[in-house]
Amino acid sequence: MSYSRQMLDTYPGTIGVDAAVLAAAIDAPSDCAQACTADVDADLSEQNLAEIIRCIRLCLHCVDVCTATLGVTSRQADYDADVTKPLLRACVAICTSCGDECERHARHYEHCRVCEQACRRCEQACRRCEQACRELLDALK
Amino acid sequence: MSYSRQMLDTYPGTIGVDAAVLAAAIDAPSDCAQACTADVDADLSEQNLAEIIRCIRLCLHCVDVCTATLGVTSRQADYDADVTKPLLRACVAICTSCGDECERHARHYEHCRVCEQACRRCEQACRRCEQACRELLDALK
Amino acid sequence: MSYSRQMLDTYPGTIGVDAAVLAAAIDAPSDCAQACTADVDADLSEQNLAEIIRCIRLCLHCVDVCTATLGVTSRQADYDADVTKPLLRACVAICTSCGDECERHARHYEHCRVCEQACRRCEQACRRCEQACRELLDALK
Amino acid sequence: MSYSRQMLDTYPGTIGVDAAVLAAAIDAPSDCAQACTADVDADLSEQNLAEIIRCIRLCLHCVDVCTATLGVTSRQADYDADVTKPLLRACVAICTSCGDECERHARHYEHCRVCEQACRRCEQACRRCEQACRELLDALK
Repeated sequence: MSYSRQMLDTYPGTIGVDAAVLAAAIDAPSDCAQACTADVDADLSEQNLAEIIRCIRLCLHCVDVCTATLGVTSRQADYDADVTKPLLRACVAICTSCGDECERHARHYEHCRVCEQACRRCEQACRRCEQACRELLDALK
Repeated sequence: MSYSRQMLDTYPGTIGVDAAVLAAAIDAPSDCAQACTADVDADLSEQNLAEIIRCIRLCLHCVDVCTATLGVTSRQADYDADVTKPLLRACVAICTSCGDECERHARHYEHCRVCEQACRRCEQACRRCEQACRELLDALK
Repeated sequence: MSYSRQMLDTYPGTIGVDAAVLAAAIDAPSDCAQACTADVDADLSEQNLAEIIRCIRLCLHCVDVCTATLGVTSRQADYDADVTKPLLRACVAICTSCGDECERHARHYEHCRVCEQACRRCEQACRRCEQACRELLDALK
Repeated sequence: MSYSRQMLDTYPGTIGVDAAVLAAAIDAPSDCAQACTADVDADLSEQNLAEIIRCIRLCLHCVDVCTATLGVTSRQADYDADVTKPLLRACVAICTSCGDECERHARHYEHCRVCEQACRRCEQACRRCEQACRELLDALK
């Protein structure tokens, strides 16, 4: 069991969202941020730099947005839809763009294939978390 | 002149958004992230902790979102509205919440008054940058 | 297999340090940063705040140092002992302090027990990585 | 007056280190992290990518270490020499390396000249802060 899930299971307050959904919205951005950091470094070691500049830039954005997302989803209390929802949306958007770009290079560069998978998983986890948050908010109305 | 503005003025590519607006959307989140980090530490030194827990939590979210925002606004190329706009929106939202909460404590705690100012400035800078980005995108259509 | 290990296994350049040791010095700070973020949030939900303020502060430092460490260990090329070694040392130090403090609260707070484990694992992984880096540097002389 | 200095001046506890020295060890890493983020983006827009790959990598490390440094120097209480000193040392080292590398490109690329200045200022501020911390610790013995 991941640390994030263990931390959720020992949380002293109430967690509004399903713990498995939330844990995924913590672990997946964490993995994705690391994979993108490593992918930038791997990209910079390739010969045809010109063709992977866009991949590098998107990975750098992805690191920043995923890091913020996992910070915010890691804090349960005082959940604020006006912050969390656009942040999850930004995270879905950059993971989609970054995943698409990595996919274009996945045949040539194994590291882009691995990074694409991390982006796709993060994209899905953030989508599910956004959905769960929306349902929770609707239920509270 | 701030480093961010100097970096924009020496940027080798084209910058779509007004440089002063963009520099503010880099410097203000940077200042705000630092002020919120310091405010958490100051809050933890106060006696009546129970009443400023919400302030601490909002400041922690604010650090994460502001740090991501300044990273993304610092990278000019491959601007992606689907990422930048929700991120700026999340930044405006957390700076508003955090500024409001700090305002509640500003009379008693000088450090919350300073932090409130940093939040307000960041909120405005992100709003202006979002507006400028929207106008740019409309102009490109 | 973790993404960090997959990224190392598909890295286009040469990796000086044992891949398993290096992967641990990426994954453990990543887990530790998340656990400490969550532990701060859990601490803030407890009644006896006064007695866990030190735990909160150390966790906040731990998040910052672990995040930097995993960024630096994720980039293979241009390894610089003058940067990596003191950074790993700072990471070992904060994980030790933070782990010790969490241990003091582990009997009362389950979340501190989980966080302590994440700190201990990170402390050991950074120690092993520092050792491996030292051996590599000695071998290169 | 910078926000960091205002936050120090309104801090409810005691600050062991000279406030001006400490504020510089907060503001300079903050500026340096931003300048390096922007420099990576500017570098990626240049034609001769091959010759500035090392500059990109060092800037990326510099962002990570400076961000951690400013987080830790922003928190006054529970100062721990075993964490702060090696972290400041890592920050001095990466700012020196990154400044040296930027200097090599400063004649051709204006953005590297600006980034070099930010690195040099951060290097000096961290050195002075390390010195001030050492004197404080000696005085406390």
